[in-house]
Amino acid sequence: MTVNETCRLAKANANAVAFSTESEKNEMLSLAAEALTAHADEILAANTRDLDRFTRGEQLRDRLALNESRIAGVAEGLRQLRALPCPVGEVIERHTTASGLKIERVRVPFGVVGIIYEARPNVTADAIGLCVKSGNAVVLRGSGDAYESNRAIVAVIKRALKEKGFNPEFIQLLDDCSREGAREFMRCQSLDVLIPRGSASLIQSTLENATVPVIETGTGNCHIYLEASADFQKALPIVINAKTQRPSVCNAAESLVVDESFARAHLCELVSALRDKGVEVVGDEPSRAICSGILPAAEEDFYTEFLALKISVKIVNGADEAIAFINEHSTGHSEAIVTENGELAEKFLREIDSACVYVNASTRFTDGFEFGFGAEMGISTQKLHARGPMGLRELTSYKFLIRGNGQIRT
Amino acid sequence: MTVNETCRLAKANANAVAFSTESEKNEMLSLAAEALTAHADEILAANTRDLDRFTRGEQLRDRLALNESRIAGVAEGLRQLRALPCPVGEVIERHTTASGLKIERVRVPFGVVGIIYEARPNVTADAIGLCVKSGNAVVLRGSGDAYESNRAIVAVIKRALKEKGFNPEFIQLLDDCSREGAREFMRCQSLDVLIPRGSASLIQSTLENATVPVIETGTGNCHIYLEASADFQKALPIVINAKTQRPSVCNAAESLVVDESFARAHLCELVSALRDKGVEVVGDEPSRAICSGILPAAEEDFYTEFLALKISVKIVNGADEAIAFINEHSTGHSEAIVTENGELAEKFLREIDSACVYVNASTRFTDGFEFGFGAEMGISTQKLHARGPMGLRELTSYKFLIRGNGQIRT
Repeated sequence: MTVNETCRLAKANANAVAFSTESEKNEMLSLAAEALTAHADEILAANTRDLDRFTRGEQLRDRLALNESRIAGVAEGLRQLRALPCPVGEVIERHTTASGLKIERVRVPFGVVGIIYEARPNVTADAIGLCVKSGNAVVLRGSGDAYESNRAIVAVIKRALKEKGFNPEFIQLLDDCSREGAREFMRCQSLDVLIPRGSASLIQSTLENATVPVIETGTGNCHIYLEASADFQKALPIVINAKTQRPSVCNAAESLVVDESFARAHLCELVSALRDKGVEVVGDEPSRAICSGILPAAEEDFYTEFLALKISVKIVNGADEAIAFINEHSTGHSEAIVTENGELAEKFLREIDSACVYVNASTRFTDGFEFGFGAEMGISTQKLHARGPMGLRELTSYKFLIRGNGQIRT
Repeated sequence: MTVNETCRLAKANANAVAFSTESEKNEMLSLAAEALTAHADEILAANTRDLDRFTRGEQLRDRLALNESRIAGVAEGLRQLRALPCPVGEVIERHTTASGLKIERVRVPFGVVGIIYEARPNVTADAIGLCVKSGNAVVLRGSGDAYESNRAIVAVIKRALKEKGFNPEFIQLLDDCSREGAREFMRCQSLDVLIPRGSASLIQSTLENATVPVIETGTGNCHIYLEASADFQKALPIVINAKTQRPSVCNAAESLVVDESFARAHLCELVSALRDKGVEVVGDEPSRAICSGILPAAEEDFYTEFLALKISVKIVNGADEAIAFINEHSTGHSEAIVTENGELAEKFLREIDSACVYVNASTRFTDGFEFGFGAEMGISTQKLHARGPMGLRELTSYKFLIRGNGQIRT
């Protein structure tokens, strides 16, 4: 099937999930979860075929690799979705006009959600689960490197739904993993929204090529601003946590912005603690004048999401300079201030133009589960539609229902 | 100034409006309204220069032309915006996590809104007003045909703001009205959102070229479904109103979908009434077999937003066929059913995939004022972010503010 044919097939079957009741959708999630563990062998065999021809290095190989425990984790994620409230059908507001029209704004699924992602087969099942619960048909365009794994996961889930009498054709996986296929996907009229999940280059390529509405996710060049009044006993654990707890994720800190007076008092101890954790610290001239453990930073380091044990340091004088620097360099994901000055904390919250702005806490909390929204499709770094963690509600739209008795406009 | 420089200038001054209080924004609206009427001569002189070199026909010329009364109308629109509630700063939700983080979701302006539109200078002032009240910087890219008029309107408003001590540089008009300039605008990193207002071809070109988030507005191939049980005494005025009250607007009806039994009883009378109003009626073979006053429709007529005194007729058998036909041909704007069958009315409301779905009322009500939202930036026909009439709230985003006391993620 061509990309357009596959998307049209998903759209033609979208009502199978859009009009399902919450209990039907929960049953589909249970069936999918059970099927993944019951047929783990089939999925692992497919994954082995992918791994056998994979040659792109160990870090990416680890993201591609499945095992029984990872499959169990994915299945558990699907089960947890059952407990989240279904957003579809919510009456967001209602009123009656002077002419007697009853107007309701009602939450509805998007329709068909396209997901384009890299060689991480767990995303396949996660995305299916989120789309089922939010009532959306889904078209998955995974990486060619994970094609066998993705195909097995989709086949196992669709078979399980079909066996219990559900129409599973609202779930579609693209066979075409070529670049041309990706471009066709990004322009496919049957998609209501396209969500790229993955690297900055995937997201950029999607923005370049897409004509369907896109939700940009994930890139996080996150900053921590250590303000002059910061309590070092809070600053140290926050910085260590935000940088080292899981450096490969988008909410990890990539840059420290430090007031000069705080730097003079504490930067060397902070850098030493970071280096003890294996972190490479690069910085501007003033930071290196204060602390010899800092290597020279290139200008582009301040624009880079390292996703690794590396951090940049910039010395500033005061909140205005810090905020301007952060707004210039950040990707609009998550930024934190460490301060004991309540007024500056509020100024930072107001003036930083990012999805999540923290006072005295680690940026690592930017996450659907941590925010109490449950599973997430990603972290939006754009301002249209959704910003920050995108859960089930962010996978819906709304429509206006207007009930009259013959009204015409005068 | 280049397009990018102009957009950067708007962004650099965005806080001048983003951080203004509601009373400051209301004062700006009053000043702008007063200035437009006080300097109507200057604007009309500029408009005359545009009209003198305009050669694209009378209908478009009428959209370009200003006069005292039109300027007064635009000024009145700005004054009315003062009464609408300012959405910025609203705490949409708040909660405290188990670890003690206080999380607030707060409504904020987008930042910089780009508007690209055709030779309608009233849009210039409307867009400025909506952006002022929603706290957004605005970059206007009007048509070259209206450049003198737009420049005069922007100059008059900015001068009035500056005289009273407001920084007006959050309002920018592009000097470059070329196609290359438009493409540069659509890819400009300083824009948070781009809204095309105008013809289907402008919107399509924006979707093709934009890398910044777009809100698609306006195209309305709106349908009215006359169901078998419809009351002809309701159907006739609804159809006449939706087609003829103002045929050039996006919420006018373009297509009638008629159950065969209703058609046999009433179509000839309906067509005769439409023709009396000057409407050209085209239809499929079955409709022409029933009523001789219907001309043959080409397949593309059913996909066309006529924006004129012309309507297409399609005969169907039952609601399923009607709904499938409408979802296939509509642009997702506004559709209505006329019926006395409550069950089919609810089915239509549920299954039609459009921004506004009506029972027994004219599609002409799809409008921010009619819905009680006040002035609108347009009617969104996409599902991302905003759907249907876009008022002030739809010109905002949100961000998460998280206040902690040293929390780190474990």
